[in-house]
Amino acid sequence: MKKRLILIILCCSFFIQNIWSQEETLEKYNLMPWPKHIESNSAKFMIDSNVTISIKGETCPRVRNAAINFLRRLANKTGVFIDVGFPLKDTSASIEISFDSVSNLTVNDDESYRLIVKKDKVTIHAISDVGALRGLETLLQLVSHNQNNYFFQGATIADAPRFVWRGLMIDVARHFQPIDVLKRNLDAMASVKLNVFHWHLTDDQGFRVESKVYPRLQEVAADGLFYTQEQIKDIVAYASNLGIRVIPEFDIPGHASAILAAYPELGSKDDYDYKVERFSGVFDPTLDPSKKVTYLFLETLFREIAPLFPYEYFHIGGDENEGKHWDESEEIQEFKKKHNLETNHDLQTYFNIKVEEILKKLGKKLMGWDEILTPSIPTTAVIHSWRGEHEGLEQSTLIEAAQKGYQAVLSAGYYIDRMLSIEHHYLVDPIGDAALTKEERKRILGAETTMWSELVTPLTIDSRIWPRTAAIAERYWSPKNINDLVSMYKRLKVINYQLEELGINHIRNKDVILRNISKNEDIKSLRVLSKICEPLKIYSRNKGGTEYKTFSPFTLFADVCTADAEDAVEFNNTVSLFIKEEKKKSLPKINNYLTLWIENHEDFIEINKNPNTTPLEPLSRNLSETSELLLKVISNKKITKLEHDKISALLIVLDEPFADTELAIVASLKSLLTYCKTNYLMQ
Amino acid sequence: MKKRLILIILCCSFFIQNIWSQEETLEKYNLMPWPKHIESNSAKFMIDSNVTISIKGETCPRVRNAAINFLRRLANKTGVFIDVGFPLKDTSASIEISFDSVSNLTVNDDESYRLIVKKDKVTIHAISDVGALRGLETLLQLVSHNQNNYFFQGATIADAPRFVWRGLMIDVARHFQPIDVLKRNLDAMASVKLNVFHWHLTDDQGFRVESKVYPRLQEVAADGLFYTQEQIKDIVAYASNLGIRVIPEFDIPGHASAILAAYPELGSKDDYDYKVERFSGVFDPTLDPSKKVTYLFLETLFREIAPLFPYEYFHIGGDENEGKHWDESEEIQEFKKKHNLETNHDLQTYFNIKVEEILKKLGKKLMGWDEILTPSIPTTAVIHSWRGEHEGLEQSTLIEAAQKGYQAVLSAGYYIDRMLSIEHHYLVDPIGDAALTKEERKRILGAETTMWSELVTPLTIDSRIWPRTAAIAERYWSPKNINDLVSMYKRLKVINYQLEELGINHIRNKDVILRNISKNEDIKSLRVLSKICEPLKIYSRNKGGTEYKTFSPFTLFADVCTADAEDAVEFNNTVSLFIKEEKKKSLPKINNYLTLWIENHEDFIEINKNPNTTPLEPLSRNLSETSELLLKVISNKKITKLEHDKISALLIVLDEPFADTELAIVASLKSLLTYCKTNYLMQ
Repeated sequence: MKKRLILIILCCSFFIQNIWSQEETLEKYNLMPWPKHIESNSAKFMIDSNVTISIKGETCPRVRNAAINFLRRLANKTGVFIDVGFPLKDTSASIEISFDSVSNLTVNDDESYRLIVKKDKVTIHAISDVGALRGLETLLQLVSHNQNNYFFQGATIADAPRFVWRGLMIDVARHFQPIDVLKRNLDAMASVKLNVFHWHLTDDQGFRVESKVYPRLQEVAADGLFYTQEQIKDIVAYASNLGIRVIPEFDIPGHASAILAAYPELGSKDDYDYKVERFSGVFDPTLDPSKKVTYLFLETLFREIAPLFPYEYFHIGGDENEGKHWDESEEIQEFKKKHNLETNHDLQTYFNIKVEEILKKLGKKLMGWDEILTPSIPTTAVIHSWRGEHEGLEQSTLIEAAQKGYQAVLSAGYYIDRMLSIEHHYLVDPIGDAALTKEERKRILGAETTMWSELVTPLTIDSRIWPRTAAIAERYWSPKNINDLVSMYKRLKVINYQLEELGINHIRNKDVILRNISKNEDIKSLRVLSKICEPLKIYSRNKGGTEYKTFSPFTLFADVCTADAEDAVEFNNTVSLFIKEEKKKSLPKINNYLTLWIENHEDFIEINKNPNTTPLEPLSRNLSETSELLLKVISNKKITKLEHDKISALLIVLDEPFADTELAIVASLKSLLTYCKTNYLMQ
Repeated sequence: MKKRLILIILCCSFFIQNIWSQEETLEKYNLMPWPKHIESNSAKFMIDSNVTISIKGETCPRVRNAAINFLRRLANKTGVFIDVGFPLKDTSASIEISFDSVSNLTVNDDESYRLIVKKDKVTIHAISDVGALRGLETLLQLVSHNQNNYFFQGATIADAPRFVWRGLMIDVARHFQPIDVLKRNLDAMASVKLNVFHWHLTDDQGFRVESKVYPRLQEVAADGLFYTQEQIKDIVAYASNLGIRVIPEFDIPGHASAILAAYPELGSKDDYDYKVERFSGVFDPTLDPSKKVTYLFLETLFREIAPLFPYEYFHIGGDENEGKHWDESEEIQEFKKKHNLETNHDLQTYFNIKVEEILKKLGKKLMGWDEILTPSIPTTAVIHSWRGEHEGLEQSTLIEAAQKGYQAVLSAGYYIDRMLSIEHHYLVDPIGDAALTKEERKRILGAETTMWSELVTPLTIDSRIWPRTAAIAERYWSPKNINDLVSMYKRLKVINYQLEELGINHIRNKDVILRNISKNEDIKSLRVLSKICEPLKIYSRNKGGTEYKTFSPFTLFADVCTADAEDAVEFNNTVSLFIKEEKKKSLPKINNYLTLWIENHEDFIEINKNPNTTPLEPLSRNLSETSELLLKVISNKKITKLEHDKISALLIVLDEPFADTELAIVASLKSLLTYCKTNYLMQ
């Protein structure tokens, strides 16, 4: 009995200690995604010129390549001149990597790893080579420093992903993204353990793949902006080296303007002037599902192109076909009758099944957006849920698909082109509270962040993808209960700069655009404004897709601004504190911000000399006036009716969109005003 | 007689007017390189959504591509939403381009153009399509603005280059430079009308070309960092589209460590352990000129690779072969005797003549560094002068070569990796005062800026090449008498930002490295220091090539700093003014700088928390103390002996190199001290 008691006490104390250490650990380490298990220790592994790295296991270019890159990144990050610049083979070293097998990057792969950092030794052991890569990324996130040294923080980590499919989709059709953009984003993806690059290669605005069989696809449908087959092989190999598989998407039968500009004979209407689309939106041109030539074209094209992508999954889009051109074609109406296809959904399912047969012959599994989820589509298809519950459906198509026997991937909730805050996406759990059987759960492969490119160019795409995608990657990899926002923000701040080290341009390119706007005047005042403004959200920047063409300028103020505007986030948090009566900490900060915005207008006037600064003048001026009034009111703890009305009127103006952005502190300014009205003497 | 007088008066007044307008014109326009003839007018061509561009002439992808890029760059630069995003063919437009022929990019090409900007019409007429491209670049440099509009400044320009060969060499062997680095630098080259990209593809540190015949070249000699043949074709096509020809260099028989690591049987020593070199310098491994297999290898390799480069000139290096391994080989000594080759120079000439025969069969003209200029080398060879007069030779090898009947290109004076000031390079005239016959002058094709890459990586290469190369490009293109430094600096400042618009990273990447150094603390204080420090010059940063390996970190303070440190240039000029008794303008500026450096140390202390900031502490502290003492002395117009000695002692410390850089204001600080000692009351 006594023994038992001691055991219970021991267990409890161990449990309590672990609870404590979990919180402390979250504070101590800046890991993202957070590992499945981590035990802290106080060892420091010093990073000096003697660091060596060895690889034990099969000869594997993937790990060798990763180890070389690890050494380069470590040297660049720390400035340490490492003597031995290449990994050793099967010998002792200060960092030892071992693994058992080489992965083919399928959904059945094991990406788990164990990482132990002690004072004089780091070991990474993994089942597969890809697991070893994941461990190396974690190790790089353990780099820390004091005044005199860089070191790896001691830890024992046993890690494995929650989902086997952790993707980022990049749309290269609306705006073409050159090879170097893709490569640097693949590097960044690997650094946060994403493992699927979904390449949205075709759409109304362009067909981006070289075809030797159908050369008009690149000659007519690409404006010269496409990937050669060699370049595609290069990207696939580059991604594979990072443990990332590449899933191509050829969007059919809708979103087909570019294909039909090249081969109009495949279209649903004979007399239509098909053209590469320059605007954004949903358009009518659609492949004709009633013609044999359509399937001949697809089979020939896919036979040529599918082998470039060595993985099983093949995405055919299938979204947003409103069937307008189908309705307008007599032949197609007859075809529907003949085949007992009642609705256009039935006709599209007919088409999908034919396409699936083509893909099956090529050893590929058909994947499509959730419109393909119709009663008669076979369960071999993979459902990519993008509409989710938010667009009027009762239940998530993800859960529905899994329950009906389909493999499924979620993107609803991860549409980063909507320009919403990171919190919004981070808190979307792919499964949520759905009660699933083990089989159903297994069918939910994972999720994908989608970067649609109507409004992004190579200059700005990084700041749209990152750092939000790093936090979302944690949602896909880490245990469900890792969802503390304070911890996420703290760690994301560190990861944000690690992305820069990898070549991501999200921070540096802001100044480039600001210099372009100011015509190389001092950009300080514009930088202040850009830190409190956010681009218009949920597609309202380009209403109906009619404001911006593909070749419009994307070097505007809205292109500098990002979701989660830096100063706005801090100011809004500070105002919340202030109103919660935590004035001691918050009041000086609020005063500082208000003073900054008052004085900023003087700097702005100095550089307001050209047509691109002019639209920002009302913002700068009204913000300055508002700040001046508020500062006075708060300092005096008195407010007159006149002051109140003046501020109110200014806030109405500041609440309006301007230059395709919105001022992200208006709600806080309103709260401050209400607070003043309620708490201060009204004169 | 009267008529004649009037004519003379008219002529004189025209002449005087032209002199005046030349000066005014230099002030008004920010063109670089400066055109051969320009007449100013006061018209403004407004840039709005109605801008259209048309092309008249042969169907030519080069001009079409340039016109599309022109429209994109114009939209991005101005923020104007241009309605028609593609050029029109043979029709009226607001910007009309015409040309007579399509160029093959030979040295006989005509690159002249006439550009007329009036209120409602821009016309560009050129002999060749490449001339039209040059005109479009000039037109983009005429973009100007007022508060309400962007416009092209009115002008009539008749332009043509002084030299037919205007090159930039990039060494991709010491540090590999990926495709995107080359492409953005090609864009920048075209923007300042350079027309030769000399691609230094092989050296001791790597062989960067895929060979299908000799695959060990990329497998063993490249560390995985090489260009596929497809990528080479891509770069050649990309450059051709910009009117730039690509000249490859395969450096032989010296600088051959990498080749010999792959194929040791070609080496001059049988028992030697050939390895890819990691350090910098001149090394012994050399191809064996006495073996038939060497020539078989070169002929087979060049037969495979030469067709990738469609131009006549083919560079074989030929430099810095000290012949040590030749001296150590009995077989080679016997070979020399047998062939009556007295010196190693004679042996290398024997080698060069054999290589020239190989190249001639492939339709190529041999080009080599000036070591190949020996008495028996045939005049069909092209001499690339790199040692010039500076290294002990009595006469420039350029002039010597031209007089002896060789075509020649100059690089002496344009070695930008020596990290010297732009002035130094800008004032080197390729021909100088040499008296040449017309024939001799014609043989001087032009000049090349050389970017050797021992100390540059993709992160830093742009800041080493630009903006200095833009000013040097003016030396190659513009009339000899365009050499006013004040005007050059004024115009370079504007061009500097235009390079950024083209994707050159020279400005933005400085902050990236500073954030890496500070570990993402506030970089303001580091930025202040980086603006007065310059990297050590003339190869003293890496003495003997033994400090840095190819894989050492290049993310250090010295990598942020550049020649012509921004604030140092301004401070030094201001101190000169001050000493010339122009105190009214200069004194406040000097005080501001001294105050900045005093206060900067407080900011620096805040962020001095890691091993990479520590080495900068003495600089920051000593500079702060010096500035404080000087400020006091200047304010009081009094100096004590103690103060003098203290400042003197501090300046001795500040004059020492630190962190591979030097403080570029020490001479000015010393001048200030001398001034104070001479002019102020000594107490």
